[in-house]
Amino acid sequence: MPKSAHVERSICPIAVTLDILGDKWTLLVVRDLLLGASRYNDFLEAPENIRTNILADRLKRLEEHGLIHKSAYQARPVRHEYKLTEKGLALRPMIRQIVKWGNEFYPQTYTPPKKGPAKRPSRKTLHGINSQR
Amino acid sequence: MPKSAHVERSICPIAVTLDILGDKWTLLVVRDLLLGASRYNDFLEAPENIRTNILADRLKRLEEHGLIHKSAYQARPVRHEYKLTEKGLALRPMIRQIVKWGNEFYPQTYTPPKKGPAKRPSRKTLHGINSQR
Repeated sequence: MPKSAHVERSICPIAVTLDILGDKWTLLVVRDLLLGASRYNDFLEAPENIRTNILADRLKRLEEHGLIHKSAYQARPVRHEYKLTEKGLALRPMIRQIVKWGNEFYPQTYTPPKKGPAKRPSRKTLHGINSQR
Repeated sequence: MPKSAHVERSICPIAVTLDILGDKWTLLVVRDLLLGASRYNDFLEAPENIRTNILADRLKRLEEHGLIHKSAYQARPVRHEYKLTEKGLALRPMIRQIVKWGNEFYPQTYTPPKKGPAKRPSRKTLHGINSQR
C-alpha cells in the first residue's frame, strides 16, 4: 500500500492503530522517546541496534502521523531533535500494558521499578541493564 | 532472523512482545478470537480481508508461542479450531488500550459499547458495523 494513498483497512481502532504502530521497531522508538531520547544518536544507543535507515523511516512516519514533533537544534549542518506530541505521549498506557504482559510471560525480561518515574528512570540505567545479558 | 534460531533482541519486555505481536495482522487475529472466532472461515469474514497464507502463518506462530491452542473438530478431512490460552487471553488489557488510543485519535473508528461483554459483543455486530463504511 503506497504511503501517499493510504487507505484504512477497516474502521476497527485496532487495525487503524496497527497501520501506524504494527511493526517490530516503531514502539521501541517511542519507548526511547518516553525514556528521554531525542537526538539521532540517542536512539542508536538502544540495545536492539536499530539500523539507521529503519530509524530514519520510523521517525519520519511518526512525524507524519503526528506522534512526534521535529525541531532543529543546530544549523550547519542542520540537526534535528524529536519530542513526543500529546498523541505520542498518549501511548504510555498501551506501552505499560505491553511491558506488563511481557514481564508476566517472559520472566527473563527487565521489570521496570514499580514506583513509576518519581525520578524518571534514566536511559543509561535501562540500557545498562539491557546490555548485561 | 530464522524462526528456528530465534534470538531475543534485548531483555526489554516491549522488544520481546513485538517479536511476537509486532506486525499488522497478529493482533487482528487475536481480536477475532476474543470476539468468538475459532474456525478458519471465521477469520476470513473479518473486514480487513486477511489473506489465507497470512492467516495460516499467524495462527501457526500464535500456537508456537503458546497464545492459542489448536484442536481438531472434524476428522476427514481434518479441520481445526483455535482457542486463546491464558497467555493469549491476557492480551485483553493491552488490546483495550489500543482500542482506547485508536478511538481517541481516530474518531471515525468504531467505539465498542462501554459496558463490556455482559453479553459478549457478537462478531456479527462488529463486522456488520465495520462493513457499513
